[in-house]
This record gives sequence, C-alpha cells and structure tokens, in this order.
Amino acid sequence: MTDVMATLPDFDRGDGLLPAIVQDSASGRVLMLAWMSQASLAETLRTGLATYFSRSRQRLWTKGEVSGQRQHLESLHVDCDGDALLLVVRQEGAACHEGYRSCFFRRWTPEGFQITDERLVDPGSLYRA
Amino acid sequence: MTDVMATLPDFDRGDGLLPAIVQDSASGRVLMLAWMSQASLAETLRTGLATYFSRSRQRLWTKGEVSGQRQHLESLHVDCDGDALLLVVRQEGAACHEGYRSCFFRRWTPEGFQITDERLVDPGSLYRA
Repeated sequence: MTDVMATLPDFDRGDGLLPAIVQDSASGRVLMLAWMSQASLAETLRTGLATYFSRSRQRLWTKGEVSGQRQHLESLHVDCDGDALLLVVRQEGAACHEGYRSCFFRRWTPEGFQITDERLVDPGSLYRA
Repeated sequence: MTDVMATLPDFDRGDGLLPAIVQDSASGRVLMLAWMSQASLAETLRTGLATYFSRSRQRLWTKGEVSGQRQHLESLHVDCDGDALLLVVRQEGAACHEGYRSCFFRRWTPEGFQITDERLVDPGSLYRA
C-alpha cells in the first residue's frame, strides 16, 4: 500500500501532467478530458471541486470558477500504469464551454462527425464579461 | 460539416497522437486510456476493432491481438477542441493487462489508492508465450 501511495499517480511519466477523464456520476457519460498536475490533484482533494492544470494558461483552474459549472468530486481512480486519472463527478450544468453537457457532443457517422447532442445552455451566458 | 470533417480530430495538436478514452458500452465504465494516431483511427474505422498507437513500442497495436481481449467499436466521439477521442466499445473479457475489467481498478480513499475491483482473469493466462 505504501508503495502504491508513493508511486501512483506517477506525474513524472507525463512531464508533470497526466490526462484526467471526467465522468458524470448521474448519467455515466464521459464529460471531458482535462490535465492534472500534482498541485491540481491536491487542490481537488482538499476542496472537493475538480481543479485542473490549464495548458493554455499555464495555471491551476477550478472548473466553473468563471462559468459556475462546477464539478463536485465523488470518486477518484488511477489506472494500472499510474499515468491516467478518472474523476467521477457531480456536474453542475454543462461541462463543455460550448454549452453542451459533455464535450464529446460529436459522433462519427458515415458522413463524418455530426453533432448528436442538444445544447443545455447558451455558451454566451457562461463567460460574459 | 466539411470543415468539421477536415479539422476534427486535430492530430496536429497532439504531435500526431491524441488521448482516446475507452468506455464499456454494457456497463458504462471507463475501461482505459490509450493513444491514437491518424493511422490507428483509420484502422479502427476500417476493421471495427479498436486499434491504438503504442508509445512504448512505437507501432500500431490492435487491442487483444495477443491477449484476445478485443474491443469492438460501437461509437466514436470527438471533443469540442478536437484533441481527445472517446470510443464506446463492446469489451471481450478484461481491458487491463493485469486482468481487471477496467484499468481504473484503484480508487482513492483516506488511506491512499486501494484496489476496489475483483480480477476477472489471471494475467499470466493473457500473455503466455
């Protein structure tokens, strides 16, 4: 057990960042993929609110800090190799910045990727100044 | 539509590889995270069998080619930014090389990560010479 605690998750394997899959506890739907640093994982465990590392802004980012669409951590899992995380969350509103419940709102069809979901909220209302 | 087909998924954003979340169609459980190149995605769509890019072996790898634990593609999704994929699959047997149904068989507890799943198959039987 101590070994596992010390070695998992292994942030060294991902240059300090590991992919984090986010799943909706209510529906089971996969909501998004984000990236976590050790500090963002610690903050998530401390607050119970999913907190990621933004690669574009190069800083910690608590999901919903602007949009209000927070994610409450229900359970946290690590994979066999210690290089991927799974967060099961209670999602408030829309996980996607485009206003969809899930970021995976496009599905492959013989005609290419097509939008198959309904928008939950107007994305303009999520990030107004 | 043509724009979306041409730009999603955007393999340029991930240096040629994008993370692919794999979800069990029967249970809704997240099974694993793998990596896909454009060629592995094309092979997956051609054959209907999930095919990834192995970063350690630097080659395409059809899941189950040795272990027999194949993944039959049921639906394919891309996220809003075009830099992550979601495969919903029918899993034969165990997705994890350690013999668990899901690679995410360790869950966070106040005492650290603990194994919370039952092994499905003896991992020694999956990869015998």
